[in-house]
Amino acid sequence: FGSWMNQRAITYRRLHDIPADWGTAVNVQAMVFGNMGNDCATGVCFTRNPSTGDNAYYGEYLVNAQGEDVVAGIRTPQPMTIAEKEASHNSGPKQPALEEVMPELYGELYAIREKLESHYKDMQDMEFTIQQNKLWMLQTRTGKRTAKAALKIATDMVTEGLITQQEAVARIDPAQLDQLLHPMLDPDADRDILGRGLPASPGAASGQVVFSAEDAEDWVSHGKKVILVRIETSPEDIGGMHVAQGILTTRGGMTSHAAVVARGMGTPCVSGVGEFNIDYASKTMKALGREIKEGDIITLDGSTGEVMFGQVPTLQPELSGEFSLLMEWVDEIRTLGVRANAETPTDSETARKFGAEGIGLCRTEHMFFDPARIIHMREMILARDEETRRGALDKLLPYQRQDFTEVFKIMEGLPVTVRLLDPPLHEFLPHTEADMEGVAKAAGVDVSAVKARSVQLHESNPMLGHRGCRLGITYPEIYEMQARAIFEATVQCAKDGVTVIPEVMIPLVCSRAELDMLKDVVDDVAAEVSEASGVKFDYMVGTMIELPRAALKADDIAHSASFFSFGTNDLTQTALGLSRDDSGNFIEVYRDKGVMEHDPFASLDQDGVGELVKIAVERGRQTRPDIKLGICGEHGGDPASIHFFQKVGLDYVSCSPYRVPIARLAAAQAALGTDEDAMAESR
Amino acid sequence: FGSWMNQRAITYRRLHDIPADWGTAVNVQAMVFGNMGNDCATGVCFTRNPSTGDNAYYGEYLVNAQGEDVVAGIRTPQPMTIAEKEASHNSGPKQPALEEVMPELYGELYAIREKLESHYKDMQDMEFTIQQNKLWMLQTRTGKRTAKAALKIATDMVTEGLITQQEAVARIDPAQLDQLLHPMLDPDADRDILGRGLPASPGAASGQVVFSAEDAEDWVSHGKKVILVRIETSPEDIGGMHVAQGILTTRGGMTSHAAVVARGMGTPCVSGVGEFNIDYASKTMKALGREIKEGDIITLDGSTGEVMFGQVPTLQPELSGEFSLLMEWVDEIRTLGVRANAETPTDSETARKFGAEGIGLCRTEHMFFDPARIIHMREMILARDEETRRGALDKLLPYQRQDFTEVFKIMEGLPVTVRLLDPPLHEFLPHTEADMEGVAKAAGVDVSAVKARSVQLHESNPMLGHRGCRLGITYPEIYEMQARAIFEATVQCAKDGVTVIPEVMIPLVCSRAELDMLKDVVDDVAAEVSEASGVKFDYMVGTMIELPRAALKADDIAHSASFFSFGTNDLTQTALGLSRDDSGNFIEVYRDKGVMEHDPFASLDQDGVGELVKIAVERGRQTRPDIKLGICGEHGGDPASIHFFQKVGLDYVSCSPYRVPIARLAAAQAALGTDEDAMAESR
Repeated sequence: FGSWMNQRAITYRRLHDIPADWGTAVNVQAMVFGNMGNDCATGVCFTRNPSTGDNAYYGEYLVNAQGEDVVAGIRTPQPMTIAEKEASHNSGPKQPALEEVMPELYGELYAIREKLESHYKDMQDMEFTIQQNKLWMLQTRTGKRTAKAALKIATDMVTEGLITQQEAVARIDPAQLDQLLHPMLDPDADRDILGRGLPASPGAASGQVVFSAEDAEDWVSHGKKVILVRIETSPEDIGGMHVAQGILTTRGGMTSHAAVVARGMGTPCVSGVGEFNIDYASKTMKALGREIKEGDIITLDGSTGEVMFGQVPTLQPELSGEFSLLMEWVDEIRTLGVRANAETPTDSETARKFGAEGIGLCRTEHMFFDPARIIHMREMILARDEETRRGALDKLLPYQRQDFTEVFKIMEGLPVTVRLLDPPLHEFLPHTEADMEGVAKAAGVDVSAVKARSVQLHESNPMLGHRGCRLGITYPEIYEMQARAIFEATVQCAKDGVTVIPEVMIPLVCSRAELDMLKDVVDDVAAEVSEASGVKFDYMVGTMIELPRAALKADDIAHSASFFSFGTNDLTQTALGLSRDDSGNFIEVYRDKGVMEHDPFASLDQDGVGELVKIAVERGRQTRPDIKLGICGEHGGDPASIHFFQKVGLDYVSCSPYRVPIARLAAAQAALGTDEDAMAESR
Repeated sequence: FGSWMNQRAITYRRLHDIPADWGTAVNVQAMVFGNMGNDCATGVCFTRNPSTGDNAYYGEYLVNAQGEDVVAGIRTPQPMTIAEKEASHNSGPKQPALEEVMPELYGELYAIREKLESHYKDMQDMEFTIQQNKLWMLQTRTGKRTAKAALKIATDMVTEGLITQQEAVARIDPAQLDQLLHPMLDPDADRDILGRGLPASPGAASGQVVFSAEDAEDWVSHGKKVILVRIETSPEDIGGMHVAQGILTTRGGMTSHAAVVARGMGTPCVSGVGEFNIDYASKTMKALGREIKEGDIITLDGSTGEVMFGQVPTLQPELSGEFSLLMEWVDEIRTLGVRANAETPTDSETARKFGAEGIGLCRTEHMFFDPARIIHMREMILARDEETRRGALDKLLPYQRQDFTEVFKIMEGLPVTVRLLDPPLHEFLPHTEADMEGVAKAAGVDVSAVKARSVQLHESNPMLGHRGCRLGITYPEIYEMQARAIFEATVQCAKDGVTVIPEVMIPLVCSRAELDMLKDVVDDVAAEVSEASGVKFDYMVGTMIELPRAALKADDIAHSASFFSFGTNDLTQTALGLSRDDSGNFIEVYRDKGVMEHDPFASLDQDGVGELVKIAVERGRQTRPDIKLGICGEHGGDPASIHFFQKVGLDYVSCSPYRVPIARLAAAQAALGTDEDAMAESR
């Protein structure tokens, strides 16, 4: 028993005089023994159920035993309460509860439970020993609990008057909350683990392996459930990603295209499983000596990064009443707005359901990958003159207008920030011979023209290439069409009685001159649409701040921008000179060697990127005190980053719909000023 | 005559009372006529020869003519002086000089020449009319001149006591000086122009077209002169680029790989000829409807961007005594050091010849592309474990040590900054099937392993990828080998009586932790080499500042860096989110539309990138007041940028060897504080 004592480095005292600094007292005063006969016992118990949060004693004990016997698993521990005994599903004969065997001591223990909770104001994990009918408390500490239990305990304790709403809010770990929002693997199920990658998008999913986005769509249309397996994903895989149960990539980090898109969709994703080798030609994947073929069933755990062979049963999440209650308190406390990054009706609905106060980033390019549209997009890209380009854009206009109308209606009364076309044009061109021929035929050109254009558009570093507002500067007619779609949708909504104030966002600006030129394009279209329809509407024009130069020139840019939205993904890529898609491998080495403490794409690099944000906030407000400031990078859903954004005084954060509750909670905690030091330490 | 008057908007006055503000007087007072008979004449003349700079009257006149007759080319103008008449190479009868025809008036004009030069202290371009034997001066202004003439006039005027050395230095346009350092096309030769690209590296060259670096080397080894024609170049083309007379690319801007490397080598280059289409398969190039085949002779003018069919004769540059004299004055005036970017013995010798005070950037990766070495480099990259990697590195060590020893000896007594390996490893891997097989054989692995490694190393954005110090962090043995080569070369030099203080430069640092770890690696090797050889030597460890985060964290990084060298190429790429290789096309549109005033890779973006440099200078000196500060980006050779670097207080600039004289001159002008406003305006 001494060894157990030493091992745990605990102390004990008679219970009736708990000192305020109990938890830190370390002087051992004497020894007690639970194995001196049948009037002895030892046990471990929780003041509430650590799994469900139920307000009932929960624990195990053994008669005539030392503490290590309870945890060693050689003897089967007995339940504390009769209720627990009745509820037990164990096979074999039911063991008597402490409540029955030693009713008086149980009563004493029960009183202590009350005393401890009213002192510590939290669920306790206690250890006790009974030596010859005398109860000795060995230790008490705040107990670990599941997300579900944490939620129930915190809200119950508010009802019981033990803690305030603020304390309840401060007590929930936002990361843990994530567990409640996604399906999870049944913890009791067997797992045949194939390998492990990065936990890129939480939740668990099973399905048949397919190796291309087209196959994913095809198989799903035949009623199958699939896991999309790719070396890496690109925007043209979006259709397959939408229908897949889960996504696995062998390359890319926590913030690769696959990871970001998957999180946005709430689809489980494991990324960067570098030890797997995919061969697209033979439709197989080598997984540490085993071969996975197309059609094989695998299971992903996007919360841990595990990849398993076969189907592992999952448990569906249920959002409890406690969740809603806590979220009410959260919303009363927080001062930071929370929006969602969403562009489809489904995403917009999810966003509203999770309490988003608007859309902070509606990525218009995602609207172009649908097969009916991509063909016109490609026609536009292949056009040799403005007239042909305008012809193709005219065909895209109705689709885009329809998209905006749907999203605007779902988000009725809330702001929607629409980002004009951002990715380089070559991302929309086909890669396979067959696709190139299809495009050539549709566009009425020779396939060699498609290939030539593809070569011409190829870029060494697309991230730093002909994209964002640079497209708007070189082909103003693209932004013109998009602005028209936005404003015509606004007018349509107005006619249907739905008010919307679109916020038109120009990406990748690095100088005021760029913004000025494109703001003119947008303003002209707005005036024209208003004139033609006879409907007056409000709108804003603003810009992303996602380049270091933009942050430095924020005072100048703010003359023409009604809002800034920090694109912290690209700001991190440029400030650190670090490609999100390529850094997966070596960032791990950096962390292993202690050169970097966390992945700067997952949690904001406050020292570097953060300083740029701070500079831009100060300089932007200097020029335009009422400028609206938000952030729409992945960091908008990261608690530590949210604390930082609160500190520098942003108006809102925007994140994936599935992270909205987490962001709301983190924003409330940031407003309370809690955890700030803890957060800083944990980074 | 009136129309000529109006057209030129000139004024005239009797010469004897030149007002100080002559050049700006615009009130027309009366008319004079040069066509009222044979006692009338009109002419244009220079106070010195605008082509050679010779201190002799130079000009043309016509008897009984109006001014426009002199310039219209209908009548052949006559020489001013007898000397000119004698020197004329015109066919046909020699026309009498003004000196003969109207000796008195010529004498009057000669006196005016003296008067004007002593007043304006510069060569004048004058227009005069003689009406009935009376001389009227119509206009005088500072005359345009060739680079050669500018140099001679400025130095002569110092000798004549007309101007000071400072004034002479301030008067030479650094850009014009560039003309003197490279061969130029014979201005009288016929040109069959095929098209035009960007003037990426000055000078003129002719040769036979080849479409690959290997062919270039092969043809040159058979005694041919070639122009290397590529869509774009990459580091593995370096051998072919070295032997080519000139380089043409159809893609890439003024600061593409081809442009930068060509300027460094002093090889003429025309880049980004987007209207040409190269077909490697058929070894042809479509040039605006004409087809150029392998072996056809073309001529490039890297100073204008013109591409011509056939051979156009060139004139070789001669560095005159005036050049050396001016450069002596330049060096007395300037306070900014000027170093060169060089890594080969040839480049190092050119650098010294042009007056470089050290090497500011010795790029070690250029040393690995030699066929004898690349194989070991590839072996290293294909290695699956550290031991195999070290084995391959051991084979590279003697080459690298030899390289450093040679360069160090040439640069004796001057500092040499050696940058450790910078580009991503995939840049060294072969692309063709045959090359891959060769590598596989040499490395004793299957060709599939080479392909797999190639796929594994592929990056979406190599510029932001696994490169620079990130290679040193993940594979410390690479930097270890390079440090060993540097220090063993230092010891070798010391033994041969040559002192060298190597400055070891760690690239792409964005945090102090990175530098700390790699400085330890370098320091350990230095101690080991010193111990083993018994030779003590000095060295420095410093870092590039080429990422925005590094600039912001300069105070922190300076704790571990003895010097900073600003890599303004990459700093521009990251601060503006703008790929140097991909921006060629749209930067032109930006400039056409007035959204950007100059190419930020050619002349520093002082507002944005410049602010980062300023921040880093301030913060770096805050921590380490004596930190050595230099710049080794392309901007080190750009006059406007040099003015900026002088202003923010850098210690030196480093540029391509062929730009060293230009940088020296610009640095002197910056020290004089001249042209600063003019430079600012011209941007």
